[in-house]
Amino acid sequence: MNEKSKARQEWEETTLARALERFPERQESFQTSSGIPLERLYTPEDVPPAYEKTVGYPGQYPYTRGVQPTLYRGRLWTMRQYAGYATAEESNSRYRYLLANGQTGLSVAFDLPTQIGYDADDSMALGEVGKVGVSISSIRDMARLFEGIPLDKVSTSMTINAPAAILLAMYIGVARSQGVEPAALRGTVQNDILKEYLARGTYIFPPRPSMRLITDLFAYCRQHVPRWNTISISGYHIREAGSTAVQEVAFTLANGIAYVQAAIEAGLPVDDFAPQLSFFFNAHNQFLEEIAKFRAARRLWAEIMRERFGARQAESQRLKFHAQTGGSTLTAQQAQNNIARVTIQALAAVLGGAQSLHTNSMDEALALPSEEAVQVALRTQQIIAYESGVADSVDPLGGSYAVEALTEEVYRRAKAYIEQIDAMGGAQKAIENGFMNREIQDAAYACQQAVERGEQIVVGVNRFTSEEKSAMTLLRVDPAIEQQQRDRLAALRAERDGDRVNELLGRLDTAARGSEALMPLLVECVENEVTLGEICRVLRGVFGEYRPTATL
Amino acid sequence: MNEKSKARQEWEETTLARALERFPERQESFQTSSGIPLERLYTPEDVPPAYEKTVGYPGQYPYTRGVQPTLYRGRLWTMRQYAGYATAEESNSRYRYLLANGQTGLSVAFDLPTQIGYDADDSMALGEVGKVGVSISSIRDMARLFEGIPLDKVSTSMTINAPAAILLAMYIGVARSQGVEPAALRGTVQNDILKEYLARGTYIFPPRPSMRLITDLFAYCRQHVPRWNTISISGYHIREAGSTAVQEVAFTLANGIAYVQAAIEAGLPVDDFAPQLSFFFNAHNQFLEEIAKFRAARRLWAEIMRERFGARQAESQRLKFHAQTGGSTLTAQQAQNNIARVTIQALAAVLGGAQSLHTNSMDEALALPSEEAVQVALRTQQIIAYESGVADSVDPLGGSYAVEALTEEVYRRAKAYIEQIDAMGGAQKAIENGFMNREIQDAAYACQQAVERGEQIVVGVNRFTSEEKSAMTLLRVDPAIEQQQRDRLAALRAERDGDRVNELLGRLDTAARGSEALMPLLVECVENEVTLGEICRVLRGVFGEYRPTATL
Repeated sequence: MNEKSKARQEWEETTLARALERFPERQESFQTSSGIPLERLYTPEDVPPAYEKTVGYPGQYPYTRGVQPTLYRGRLWTMRQYAGYATAEESNSRYRYLLANGQTGLSVAFDLPTQIGYDADDSMALGEVGKVGVSISSIRDMARLFEGIPLDKVSTSMTINAPAAILLAMYIGVARSQGVEPAALRGTVQNDILKEYLARGTYIFPPRPSMRLITDLFAYCRQHVPRWNTISISGYHIREAGSTAVQEVAFTLANGIAYVQAAIEAGLPVDDFAPQLSFFFNAHNQFLEEIAKFRAARRLWAEIMRERFGARQAESQRLKFHAQTGGSTLTAQQAQNNIARVTIQALAAVLGGAQSLHTNSMDEALALPSEEAVQVALRTQQIIAYESGVADSVDPLGGSYAVEALTEEVYRRAKAYIEQIDAMGGAQKAIENGFMNREIQDAAYACQQAVERGEQIVVGVNRFTSEEKSAMTLLRVDPAIEQQQRDRLAALRAERDGDRVNELLGRLDTAARGSEALMPLLVECVENEVTLGEICRVLRGVFGEYRPTATL
Repeated sequence: MNEKSKARQEWEETTLARALERFPERQESFQTSSGIPLERLYTPEDVPPAYEKTVGYPGQYPYTRGVQPTLYRGRLWTMRQYAGYATAEESNSRYRYLLANGQTGLSVAFDLPTQIGYDADDSMALGEVGKVGVSISSIRDMARLFEGIPLDKVSTSMTINAPAAILLAMYIGVARSQGVEPAALRGTVQNDILKEYLARGTYIFPPRPSMRLITDLFAYCRQHVPRWNTISISGYHIREAGSTAVQEVAFTLANGIAYVQAAIEAGLPVDDFAPQLSFFFNAHNQFLEEIAKFRAARRLWAEIMRERFGARQAESQRLKFHAQTGGSTLTAQQAQNNIARVTIQALAAVLGGAQSLHTNSMDEALALPSEEAVQVALRTQQIIAYESGVADSVDPLGGSYAVEALTEEVYRRAKAYIEQIDAMGGAQKAIENGFMNREIQDAAYACQQAVERGEQIVVGVNRFTSEEKSAMTLLRVDPAIEQQQRDRLAALRAERDGDRVNELLGRLDTAARGSEALMPLLVECVENEVTLGEICRVLRGVFGEYRPTATL
């Protein structure tokens, strides 16, 4: 990168040259997932100059070394296992199990019908109720989900996007019924529709009304739920779809730029909503690149917020993120190997300064995680936190020639992508015209090819395979719960005030056609037992539905 | 360490001071296992100056960054799982299983009678045959142990100390019977008696004749088995006994100094034997300190060899080491958590530049490792090697402010210990007078106290406990093998040339009383089916037995 020292040149010409003559290296070249060359050796010359400007101090611009000055010496990251399946009761019991085991935050997985705005008794929900997460159709389900869990004491993350505003409204309603003021609530809704169009697929409405719902939620929370993280701008699924680490950073921050832009256009001052933005990244296999990725993402976002959007508050410039270990790296073969993978990935997330972390369970490539597997996953975080000592010093790999050089390189390459996306007119355009998707697919294809050619080894899959069958007990969801949810919805519809429901749905229709804030009305709806599906049906009628265009 | 930059002072007085006011840290101070303060933040000012002198380049003095210039880019570390139990046949089948699973080196565990020089049919062996390792009484057992494994193709490590010369003689004999010349053999005998007196306990003879056997083996190998590592100077058991990381380095290198001194006094030129010395360290929990430990040990040993002993060859200055993950860190509770511990420890060993590595099996706190558990342990190494990317750049954490500062501190503190031991008259004295033992016991006691007070958390043991019982299948050794070994020895004694045996034992007695080299005679003995126990009985008669003095 910079001029080589005389000593380094000498080393290359003598010691190294002799060794290479006798022992050729395993590969002609080595590179990261992003195609960044991984050099044989990094030395002081490889570290970008201007420490104060590019690396600096934790809790201080550009936040490369972390968003808090004491990081985990002050408080450990939130250990937050994503969980939810079957009925609200069963998920509730899993949450209590996790809290009893030392988990420090909740993370709700919703089933597919809930994520795309259908009640459990809708024909569109058939066969999917409670499968990949918990089924929540009404505030009654939400109340059962948090039965006995005081909502002013936990922080709750909800993986919900298109109908995020409705589920947050239910959560607020349940909190109120517990006597907890919305201002006391802490947590996150994912609420990131752009990556749904791009990679995850649980969208409902077209971009424009979706962005309206999102910024509407920003504004409502600013006033009523000020500690709530209003969005979790997610690279996780982009990476799971096969992107590189650089693409994960670039496309996620590009989406972030689009949200900030939309909120500003909706009239919100940047420093009013930016502190409650949060991010969600993947913690993948390549240890060094992953650590560099988290550090680069912080630096780049701080720069974007300060330079592009003129954010003045430190809180607006700080990229806080949740990390989840890489689901797609897990193998169904030799499932206990996944514990080792998850450990490496989790360690990278912690060394990268994550604010909260989900560690995957070893059996996630096979089924929903069993209690035993979830316990090991949580223990892995606790071992890193309490036994490894890495939480006791801030950004302990800062200064590593390799990590600093990679941080700089991920930063540069992600920044170049963002400039390219800017030139197309921003993230929404770069999704609609298929650019991001093509880039991800190219990366995924190259990676798949490398695996098939055996250049990328996947232990237990394309090498070091074995015959044994796993003896693990897998979790199965009882198919009877679908009927149970239908019966409950029938009871709810019979018991509630039908006139009130109709009146509210009428008001919602009118409000959606206009431009007023929707969140207060959504809260009123769910508190009066209007269901998720009923609300979404009205909004579908007004907003229409998103239809992806073929992009390849 | 050095003067703080203005920017850092500003950070401390503003950003940090404000944060500390609002959020006190979890503990008043943080420290490593060695009591080294772990600072909140390391910055460029914490890195020792004079990069070329203290850190330098891999494959070049002082070898802080590794002993080879291309390290794992050239060749991955040897994946070497320590294994052996019951009879030679059963161990042979485990070795073949491991080799078939991608293991790249063998590592033999011997049972207790073998380690202290008793045949399986000796009354001293009762109840211990085949328990903690394989039972080897004669060259016939050794031949069965390596049946079908070509000894010119594998490298074999043997954890054998007091009778190391005898077991190596058997190995040479088996190789010859396979048609393999001794010069083609690669491997290691542990052969480190000082740490047996100190921490491990399988000694036979007093120090003086023990040192003679050791240097005798050095000289023999120099002439006949030049690629063999003649000793594995072991910190592993010192650490397992409860030492700190600094003590592990200091006492191990102090023992190393004693061996080098003894060999020089026996007339061997340092550059003739030093290249074949090897080391064996523990890979413990504290990730940063462990990585620093390996780097500091290399630097310190290089300095000792060059400055104190005037070693000229690079090969004599290079500290090569085998690492094993920390057995004492494993818990019987929630045994799958051990996979996470082992992963962190193995990653530290690799980032510390180990030449070979044993990863413990998750069930080792409960029993001898089962095949399934051994496979996961080996896969953990393969995942680090092939999936994590850390093997693709040399010493990738080099330059990390924290790692470099800790490396310097471990180096300084270990060096201070060695000076203290020098002042006592060397390692043998510091063992005999109880110094090393007291230091280790103090450290172990302090650590135990911290665990009991709950200051040191052991996940699943003193926190995050649970009720579940493990459902793992544990390996049990069949007690019938003791009788089988007796019968075999009876057959051997009946079949062999008894006169020849007696003549050889007589010659051995005479040689031991004199000062001639013993190894050639030992090879002749075992090739004529003289047993381990018979040889040791003669040597016990001449040398006497070691009796530890109470040191506390």
